[in-house]
Parts: sequence; C-alpha cells; structure tokens
Amino acid sequence: MASNSAMPPPVTAQSLNPKVLKCEYAVRGEIVSIAQKLQQDLQANPGSHPFKEILYCNIGNPQSLGQKPITFFREVLSLCDHPALLDKTETSSLYSADSIKRASTILDQMPGRATGAYSHSQGIKGLRDTIATGIEVRDGFPVDPNDIFLTDGASPGVHMMMQLLIRSENDGILCPIPQYPLYSASIALHGGTLVRYYLDEATGWGLEISELKKQLEAARQKGITVRALVVINPGNPTGQVLAEENQRQIVDFCKKEGLVLLADEVYQENIYAPDKKFNSFKKICRSMGYGDKDIPLVSFQSVSKGYHGECGKRGGYMEVTGFGPEVREQFYKVASVNLCSNISGQILASLVMSPPKVGDESYNAYMAERNGILESLARRAKTLEDAFNSLEGVTCNKAEGAMYLFPRIQLPKKAIKAAEEAKKAADAYYAIRLLNATGVVVVPGSGFGQVPGTWHFRCTILPQEDKIPAIVSRLTDFHKKFMDEFRD
Amino acid sequence: MASNSAMPPPVTAQSLNPKVLKCEYAVRGEIVSIAQKLQQDLQANPGSHPFKEILYCNIGNPQSLGQKPITFFREVLSLCDHPALLDKTETSSLYSADSIKRASTILDQMPGRATGAYSHSQGIKGLRDTIATGIEVRDGFPVDPNDIFLTDGASPGVHMMMQLLIRSENDGILCPIPQYPLYSASIALHGGTLVRYYLDEATGWGLEISELKKQLEAARQKGITVRALVVINPGNPTGQVLAEENQRQIVDFCKKEGLVLLADEVYQENIYAPDKKFNSFKKICRSMGYGDKDIPLVSFQSVSKGYHGECGKRGGYMEVTGFGPEVREQFYKVASVNLCSNISGQILASLVMSPPKVGDESYNAYMAERNGILESLARRAKTLEDAFNSLEGVTCNKAEGAMYLFPRIQLPKKAIKAAEEAKKAADAYYAIRLLNATGVVVVPGSGFGQVPGTWHFRCTILPQEDKIPAIVSRLTDFHKKFMDEFRD
Repeated sequence: MASNSAMPPPVTAQSLNPKVLKCEYAVRGEIVSIAQKLQQDLQANPGSHPFKEILYCNIGNPQSLGQKPITFFREVLSLCDHPALLDKTETSSLYSADSIKRASTILDQMPGRATGAYSHSQGIKGLRDTIATGIEVRDGFPVDPNDIFLTDGASPGVHMMMQLLIRSENDGILCPIPQYPLYSASIALHGGTLVRYYLDEATGWGLEISELKKQLEAARQKGITVRALVVINPGNPTGQVLAEENQRQIVDFCKKEGLVLLADEVYQENIYAPDKKFNSFKKICRSMGYGDKDIPLVSFQSVSKGYHGECGKRGGYMEVTGFGPEVREQFYKVASVNLCSNISGQILASLVMSPPKVGDESYNAYMAERNGILESLARRAKTLEDAFNSLEGVTCNKAEGAMYLFPRIQLPKKAIKAAEEAKKAADAYYAIRLLNATGVVVVPGSGFGQVPGTWHFRCTILPQEDKIPAIVSRLTDFHKKFMDEFRD
Repeated sequence: MASNSAMPPPVTAQSLNPKVLKCEYAVRGEIVSIAQKLQQDLQANPGSHPFKEILYCNIGNPQSLGQKPITFFREVLSLCDHPALLDKTETSSLYSADSIKRASTILDQMPGRATGAYSHSQGIKGLRDTIATGIEVRDGFPVDPNDIFLTDGASPGVHMMMQLLIRSENDGILCPIPQYPLYSASIALHGGTLVRYYLDEATGWGLEISELKKQLEAARQKGITVRALVVINPGNPTGQVLAEENQRQIVDFCKKEGLVLLADEVYQENIYAPDKKFNSFKKICRSMGYGDKDIPLVSFQSVSKGYHGECGKRGGYMEVTGFGPEVREQFYKVASVNLCSNISGQILASLVMSPPKVGDESYNAYMAERNGILESLARRAKTLEDAFNSLEGVTCNKAEGAMYLFPRIQLPKKAIKAAEEAKKAADAYYAIRLLNATGVVVVPGSGFGQVPGTWHFRCTILPQEDKIPAIVSRLTDFHKKFMDEFRD
C-alpha cells in the first residue's frame, strides 16, 4: 500500500472543465435536494413536517405524480420486449388484438426481429417510416424518413445540435427568456454564448420580432456570430401557443438573418385553449413556399410530454431539414458515435406518432384515456391559474399549452432583503419557504431567466385532480402568512 | 415566398464545430456505408453479388446476428412495461414465477410503481442497491450505491467523463493503441489530446508500464497535462485479459502519476481462456489497500456485451470512486442535465448484475442459455483464430476475452501500392475488397490505431456457429485470390 495523503488529489472541482462548472440546471437544482432531504425525513419520522408528502411540481414528470400510461402503448412495448408471447395462445386474452398486430408489424421491421440489437444510428428504418407518415398526417406536407433522427428524448438531440453549431464563445444561440434551462445548460457545456430575447409577459408571453432584431443586432455588435434561434412552442415555462402569423414572421426572420431554426415542439399535443392550435414550424415553412433548400430547421419531439408523459422511456426524434448533404453526413457521424437511441424509446416514438385509429380494437379505450388526461390537465391548469391570480401581488398568464404555469410575484422589499441576507435570489427564497411549509416543490423563476427585478416561479399542472384543492389551500395559506410576515 | 438561392447557406460543413469535423468513428464508417449499399442491391436484385447476405462482423452486436435474448431478462422487462399483467391470472402461465416476483420487487422500488417517470438522475435507488450488491458479490469489497451512475450504455458515461476532465487541447488522455474508437472520437469531440500508448502484439497485446511511462513523459514534454489513463479489459479490439500483477502495476502507475483510471470493463463476462480470470480494477485497488480517497477510478459496465448482448436496450452504469464531494456534485449536475437514463436499460443493468440464483424457477434455463452462448463464443473465437492463422501472411493472437479477433496481415507491396492509388489505407483497401467479394464486413485496423506500417482488421466472433464454416471458406478463398493478385 502506497497511500500518500500529502499528494493533492488528481481531480478537484477547480481542475474540471470550466464549461461544466459554468453550467446550471435549476429544474434539478438546490430546491430538489432540499425536497429529497424532506422526503427522507418524512419516511424516517412521519409527522416531522406539516405535510404528509412532497409534491414535485418542479418537473414535467406526469407519471411520477400518478398519471397512468396509455394501455395500448404499454401492451405493444411489453410484447416487443418478449416476442415469444406472440406464439402463445394465452396472449390473446391478455393483450388487445391491435397491440398484437402492431407488435408483429414492428418486429417485422427489425432485421432478424431483434429488439436487442443496435439499430441504424438514426433509428430503425420502419419506425422512421411510421413517424414520417405521422408527421405528414399532422402537417399535410411530405416527409423524408431519412430526415428523422430518433433520440433518447429531446435533450440529447438539443445537445447534438449545440455540439455541431457551437465553435467557440463567439458563437451565439438566440433563446427565449424565460427558457427551459436545458438550452442555457447545453450552450454553457458546449462553450457558446446565450443570446437572450425576452418574451413579453404583458401580452401573454408574446414573441416580438422587434425584440429578436434588437437582441440579434446587439449580439452582432459584440462580435457574436448568432447561429440559431430557439423557439419553444408551446412555451416552457410560459405556456403560450404561438399564432400562425407570428410563426410566419419568425420563419422570415430566420431566413433573412441566416439562422437555423431550432423548434422545440415537444408540447405539441398539450393545447388547452379552445381558440389555439399547434402548427409545426415545418408546416409553416412549407405553407410559405419554403422548400428543403430554403431554411435549416430542426423540430424536436419527445415521448415524455403530450398526453402520454412517458419520461422514463427516453424516446423522441428530431426532424432535420434544410441542411446540405455534407452537413448531414456530420450529423450522422455524431449520432453514430453513440451507436443508437434505445429501441423501446424508438418504438414508443413511432406509437405516439401513429396511435390507434377508428376501427381498431383499442381505439375507444385509447381515446378515453387520452382525452381524459388532456381534459383533466386543462381543468387543473385553469384551477391553478385562478388560484394564483387570487393571491395578493400575484399575476399569472393562462397556460394555453404545455404543462406549466409561470406566475409573477410582486415580492415586498422586506422579503427581498431577507432573501439577500440568506444569499438567495428572492424567488428562490420564496420557493424554499413554500417547500418547507407545504411540501410543494416549484422552480424559482431565476432558474429560467426573467426580466431583471421581476420574480416568478414555475409550477407544473401535473398533480392529480383530487390533490389540487389541498395544494391550492396550502399555497394560499402559505402565501398569506408570507405576505403578513414581509408586507411593506 | 422569399427564397433567395443566391444567399450562402447558414450552415456548411466548413462552418460546423471543427472538433466534430475532426472526430472519426470507423466502426460505423465508410465500410458500413458500402455494406448498406450492397444490402440494398441484394434486396432489389437477388443474385447481384457473389453472396446472399451481408454478415456484419464490424460491430459487437450479437442479437443482430441471431443471438437470442436471455428469457428471464425479457420476461421481467415485459412485465415492468405493462404492470397490469401482474393482476391477471393468465400471467402465471406465460411468465416464470421468479420473473413475476422480480418485476414486483422492481416496481415496488419505483415511487408510485411508475416505470414511465424520470428517475433520480443517477438511476432508481433500489436498482442501484441491487447493482451495488452484485458488484460486492463479484469483488468481495463494499460498494456504495451512491457511487453508481446508471447510463444509456457505456458510451454516454465515457463522453461524460471526457466532458468533465478535458479543458482544452492541452489536456491529454492516455489510450491504448489499438483502441475502441469511442475513445478517440470522444476526446476529439471534447477538444482534448489523445496520448497513445501501444499494446505489444508480440506478447499477446501486453500492456507494458515502461511504454506508459515513455508516452506520459513525451506528452508532458510537449506541455500536455495528462489527466487519465484508459484501460480496456478485456481488450477491444485486441481480446487480451490482463493479469492481476499487471493490473497492480497499472494502479500504482496511476497513483504515482496522479491519473484518473478509466476502466472499460464492459466485457467482464466474456472470458474464453480457461487460465484467465476477470478482475475489476476496483477489486485490485481495494486488495492493494487503496481506499476511496486514494485513487480516482471509474469502472464502465454495459448491458450490451457479456452473454446477454442487449445492445438495443442502451443500459449500463459507471461506478465512480475516489473523487471528492465537490467533484461528485459536478458529475451529478451533468447527469441531471440529461434527466436520467432510460428505465428499461436501468432495469436490465440491475438484472445483469443480479441474475437468477440456485433454486429460482428460471435458474436452470438461465444457466443453459448463458453457458450455451459463452461456450459457443469460445468455440467461434477458436475456429476463426485458427482460420486466420492458416492464411498466408496472417498472424492472429488468441481472443482470451471480449468479442473480437484482430489479425495482422502482411500485405504485399503491390497491394499497398494499389491501395495508395485508390486513396485508401492498405487495410481499408483489403477490407473493402473482402466485403465486395464475400459480404463479410470487418473494420480496418487503421480505424483503431496500430503500429505504423502494420496492417490489421477487427472481426467479431458473433456470426452464429452454423455460418462460421462458410465464412471461413469464403475468407480463405478471398485471401488466396487477393494474395495471388498482389504477391510480390
């Protein structure tokens, strides 16, 4: 044994990649560590806190809060995991006829029916065909299955695009503020510059072209080459659904300024406002007459969101259009270094883009499950929005889509001072106090970015409906006491 | 419509991240593109080539070549995907009793029994407990479940470590040559310097400490800070299994030189030489008396290799020891930006580290499947090794472990000249000729690195046993003709 404790350790936090040190990811940050600690307390000493359970409203993770998976999807996955079932007579009494048929079709699309083999690095061709057809049905424009890259959820796709586009800190990516912090984290990890554009809270988180222009110009004057524009539609954490006319302006802006359009469209199924409709940017581009050679566009989709909420399966895809063959070759190479995305996630992505149809045995049950979830989410969004808006000093835009509310809190000066003394952002201070008092975990607005001097938090609309009244009353109670303590 | 084809495209290959352009990944490179083209030819025009099928011996992808998954593992996955089955009486006639029990146990370990939820970013705690126990049984030393990071296969774990350790091109990583090109690709993508150390082909791909020292010194003299040593054991593409004494020397070398030891141990179950045994570096360190504070060590494991070969499931883990809490916090943060690895892969990683035991209903069937695969792999390795060694100018070390043979070919000068004229590395020229003549896909040695002036190729031992005689005869026939064409 040659231990020499006098030697400095080979790796210290200071000697790690500074890009890693710079990266922040609030959705799983300090607030979640505190929540996990409280949860352990509650397990070890029930009754040790003024609540019985931790309610994780920090992250869009529906099944962790009791949402059940869509039966048809899980039947197909279960059969594909154990294809020997397809030869057993008992199987027809346990599984729906169309899940059995779909599993057989999917297995036939795999060389050797091997669900345990690495696939093509873009994903199994037959599944990409299915997804391409699904997008065609959605948009009414043709899709090339070779434009589909299956991914382990949307996040690795976003990382891949940042890795490809960012050469140095002189390369910038235009991102909305507030934004889902995957973007700021990925840009930091890849050493680029986050170029902020602000959404307008006063107009329901409107995306103004004048603001895009202003921020682009400012970045260019600092010597930043802006390479891409990120648009999250429906918005995260803001919940707005873009109007078609606004989308057309965004497309023209990207075209004119030579930007890649990175369209985060993972909430495309989550629309609650009856007067709103999701339009993919691909559809908008094609309907404007822009073809594959006119505008580089990446659309991200995930199995984690929508009505299915299959976060743990890590499935998703990017539709990549408007890049030349030499660039595409580099995309493929980077995908191939990770071999392929997981096959269960690939299968699920194909199911999400091609669910049961009228006449299929599962259709009615599927539609009941799907609509039940989406209608309930809409009700939950409304109840929470109303609750937030009834609190002193709180205003909350409507969640037209996605899974979040992002209320603004006018914090009293005394509260801001108390936060400063505790060395916390004021909204982080509020969120930690809320957690300790109620067990409800929300993410401070500072984790997403906000207009300086304003304070917000993001709260998912995902707790099950029977829990919402208790959450509302605990939140209301906490907020009153907080304001009584700090009111100026 | 505002298409303006005179404008330059916003993204060209030349304007991508130069680190991406520099990265190479031979396992899925040009040779695979040619193979895919030939396969399309064969489908469109059967009989268009002198072979009926493409045999992909380029990649360790057992199930793509007909290996069947382990029944117990798939039963558990199938039940976890569709937990409603556990409440049905028919289930007991379709699934083994221990797979039902195991699935129930696993579901109980998940908050809300939710297999569709994001988990803790290091993976589900109960599964990490199971893996920790499995490592303890393997090594005889204690394991902290908090040291386990579940990953989507080993590759993302390797990328994560490179991302954390590499700050600039002045940081180097010592890698074996020949190496699995994931390492060179990942170092290139993260902007570091590959510091080569050569394995000694003459001593069965021996890893000499004198060579490590020599290359470390040379790198330091060039101003490179060498941060880590990569060891692949059993070797890929080389198949050697390190002796315990050699491993002790490697550990002492890392300790003395202040290097992180990155131990690629994904082939730990694949040992074919009766006189060889796999020892994890963790076990070696602890048996030498080095504790958690003495040496930073990362051990990579994957569900893709072993006897199970579940490549498509993208499961694996890293055991991370010997880093301080501040560094660990950064590891966790980077893991959290990707939320979590896929749950099916997490479950499978726990099964691989805790397979059925004596007395379990599945035990005999499991052992029969497992041993059948491993014994067959050993026979295939021997048959192919003998076949290569019988070829003119070819010498091939034994595959003591892993899934590959890496024969050396003495290519005639005329062949080298023909390759130069075709603008190919000489072994790439040989491999492309072999593919076009036989349909067998191997990877040229130049993709893994080799002593300059020597030529090799990597061939997996994975084609099913009934196909081996035909492969041998086609290879032999091709090689004779090739030598007849080019013999000096």
